Amino acid sequence: MDLFARLKAAASDDWQSYVDHDFVRRMSAGTLPPEAFRYYLVQDYLFLIQFARAYALAIYKGRSLADMRAAKAGLSAILDLEMDLHVRLCGRWGLSPEVIESAPEHQATVAYTRFVLDSGMAGDLLDLHVALAPCVIGYAEIGRSLTPGGAEALGTHPYRDWIGEYAGEAYQQVAADARSHLDGLAARAMTERRFAELTALFAKASRLEAAFWQMALTETGS
Amino acid sequence: MDLFARLKAAASDDWQSYVDHDFVRRMSAGTLPPEAFRYYLVQDYLFLIQFARAYALAIYKGRSLADMRAAKAGLSAILDLEMDLHVRLCGRWGLSPEVIESAPEHQATVAYTRFVLDSGMAGDLLDLHVALAPCVIGYAEIGRSLTPGGAEALGTHPYRDWIGEYAGEAYQQVAADARSHLDGLAARAMTERRFAELTALFAKASRLEAAFWQMALTETGS
Amino acid sequence: MDLFARLKAAASDDWQSYVDHDFVRRMSAGTLPPEAFRYYLVQDYLFLIQFARAYALAIYKGRSLADMRAAKAGLSAILDLEMDLHVRLCGRWGLSPEVIESAPEHQATVAYTRFVLDSGMAGDLLDLHVALAPCVIGYAEIGRSLTPGGAEALGTHPYRDWIGEYAGEAYQQVAADARSHLDGLAARAMTERRFAELTALFAKASRLEAAFWQMALTETGS
Amino acid sequence: MDLFARLKAAASDDWQSYVDHDFVRRMSAGTLPPEAFRYYLVQDYLFLIQFARAYALAIYKGRSLADMRAAKAGLSAILDLEMDLHVRLCGRWGLSPEVIESAPEHQATVAYTRFVLDSGMAGDLLDLHVALAPCVIGYAEIGRSLTPGGAEALGTHPYRDWIGEYAGEAYQQVAADARSHLDGLAARAMTERRFAELTALFAKASRLEAAFWQMALTETGS
Repeated sequence: MDLFARLKAAASDDWQSYVDHDFVRRMSAGTLPPEAFRYYLVQDYLFLIQFARAYALAIYKGRSLADMRAAKAGLSAILDLEMDLHVRLCGRWGLSPEVIESAPEHQATVAYTRFVLDSGMAGDLLDLHVALAPCVIGYAEIGRSLTPGGAEALGTHPYRDWIGEYAGEAYQQVAADARSHLDGLAARAMTERRFAELTALFAKASRLEAAFWQMALTETGS
Repeated sequence: MDLFARLKAAASDDWQSYVDHDFVRRMSAGTLPPEAFRYYLVQDYLFLIQFARAYALAIYKGRSLADMRAAKAGLSAILDLEMDLHVRLCGRWGLSPEVIESAPEHQATVAYTRFVLDSGMAGDLLDLHVALAPCVIGYAEIGRSLTPGGAEALGTHPYRDWIGEYAGEAYQQVAADARSHLDGLAARAMTERRFAELTALFAKASRLEAAFWQMALTETGS
Repeated sequence: MDLFARLKAAASDDWQSYVDHDFVRRMSAGTLPPEAFRYYLVQDYLFLIQFARAYALAIYKGRSLADMRAAKAGLSAILDLEMDLHVRLCGRWGLSPEVIESAPEHQATVAYTRFVLDSGMAGDLLDLHVALAPCVIGYAEIGRSLTPGGAEALGTHPYRDWIGEYAGEAYQQVAADARSHLDGLAARAMTERRFAELTALFAKASRLEAAFWQMALTETGS
Repeated sequence: MDLFARLKAAASDDWQSYVDHDFVRRMSAGTLPPEAFRYYLVQDYLFLIQFARAYALAIYKGRSLADMRAAKAGLSAILDLEMDLHVRLCGRWGLSPEVIESAPEHQATVAYTRFVLDSGMAGDLLDLHVALAPCVIGYAEIGRSLTPGGAEALGTHPYRDWIGEYAGEAYQQVAADARSHLDGLAARAMTERRFAELTALFAKASRLEAAFWQMALTETGS
């Protein structure tokens, strides 16, 4: 069992509350109200900006050029690629760049992103990547779970673009790399005693992710 | 007008949403349900731990021994004094140390505290202290506004202890010192362009404080 | 006068001790012993690794996507370009990648690089970039001062490659951009009181750069 | 063997270059020129200011209230006690507070202190405390090695005050506590793979400490 699988097993309630959240179920069923999805999209854009900062922190904290270059690849993926994809996806849902850039950060966005940044600054690279894992690796798991028949079978599913991106091969590879990177960090610095702390960190990050889905439902009365 | 007064004026809506929150009004009227107050007390204890870290960050960021010693006084006030007071206050409300120390941090607690820590780490001492101000100075304003006839007039008010602490001379002096410290930092590093950024920071911190009050009402159905 | 010109004028002795150091004069005259240059090259490679971390810190500290993307361009220039150039230059001087990567950092390398990183972490972006300026902008000034007749006139000068790189148009543009970036940061957050502190920071960084040249002379008995 | 003993054994050459440095030998023999000692004393005062920042960083990085309070005790020892002792010791050697506070930091002082701060910020608490260990624990070893007959036997030794302080029971206890704290941190987060990295960190910190002694000899031509 790799570290990610162990963390999921050890924090399974919190993990389930996130990956099996009502927002995810309704997205899967195609019954999620569009306004909830739009609310989510805007906050997710603001979320990405903070995640780029987290990858910059990972470069700063790198112990070798290899560490630094790996983290820089993650940073570039966000700043050079994902943010543009996000802006385009927002556009298809009628959200202009002006709207998304001027939106205030919701408490749920602040909570998860600053928790990740602070955990990473106060701890080491392993803490930082465990705090990032529910997002980075979790999205790939959610994407796959929503496409039991493959991404092609999505047909005219209203959330096809979003699901397809995370279920797609490219993102699945990003997540697979993140899992093995986590194992590399654990081989270096994880003791069994520390596993308990990392589980608490992972559980908390998962709850904050669940709260991020909930935000979109609550704020739009969905 | 000192910097704190300017910030309040520039962010008056967000400021009012915090100092005039329903939680505060009902505490003042004595109609706040005890379970809401208890919920708040527990989270406020967890909040204080992160605030101690923020003062440690202020020491790390000090540019002179005087800066460092001032921040250390703030740190000692929290770790050596306020936390004990808090535990005693919790005790009077039937909350044991075990209960408060094992409570999970609520999203609202995570959001404000990590926002302060991250703003302070990413910015300079002025950013850090502006982010702290709604709490440090705001509590003194709230305490005073709840005691128009002086702390002695509280009589058998159910929240007399809490109100009396923040309305009392000792805490009023802490807040007055924090205000003049803020002015010292501004004299060093504030331009008018930066004032706009600090206002945005102050407004966001005030909203996160308002959300902290709201948490106690929402979580207890009050 | 832009901020960089003001800083040079205000810290002129320390600045001169750096840009007019014996190492620079002897490189200009072509009389610098090759072993001193080789010693410098190896340490400068280790220096670059830390500088990449400083640019990562600048991304983390960015206040806007524009800030973050500008710092990322600086980071990419180091990790994707300059380090390879450096390895090639080392190769022409008989230094293999194995030699440079396994060399221990000299005290002088540790001192300047960690001073920059710590100044940047404890302060704000302006502090970070002022601490970087003697290196980033200073090298362009040194390159130009060593090519009064243009880079083409270097002929068979033994240090033609090095001088040509920093005197060349591409690097001169990097430095010009860094100067105007510094002015942008100053417009945001510099008061006259703070100018005195920035001058002290700039002077100290310049002395640490001078000590970096001196290291190469002292360690090789040149 | 505790972690500190393992680190000394694994980095024995660098460790010996520090604890058995010519500065220490001549201090022991009473032949160290007073001007070298004075030079050291002034830089050591500037060193302490940065060490106080390192303990503040340890509070910020604490994972529990117990961690935070332990680090705060170390911080208080420096800011409330050691700095005053140091000023008094300087006074006995004819150095006024004005002289020591206005002295510029030497490169050797910058190198070790900022290396510690950066190692601690980039890594975790264990990295921070391993980087501090040559100073915190090393001084106790040096103090004891200079008093084979006990501190009382120092008689009229010219460096009796300094040696007595570090050989004395109070400081020996500080060092013993630091050793067991290191073991506690290692039990939490040290793997054998990480031991190799910690050894490299410890070795580098020891070399930077040796260079700090050397600074006082070189700068005074002793």
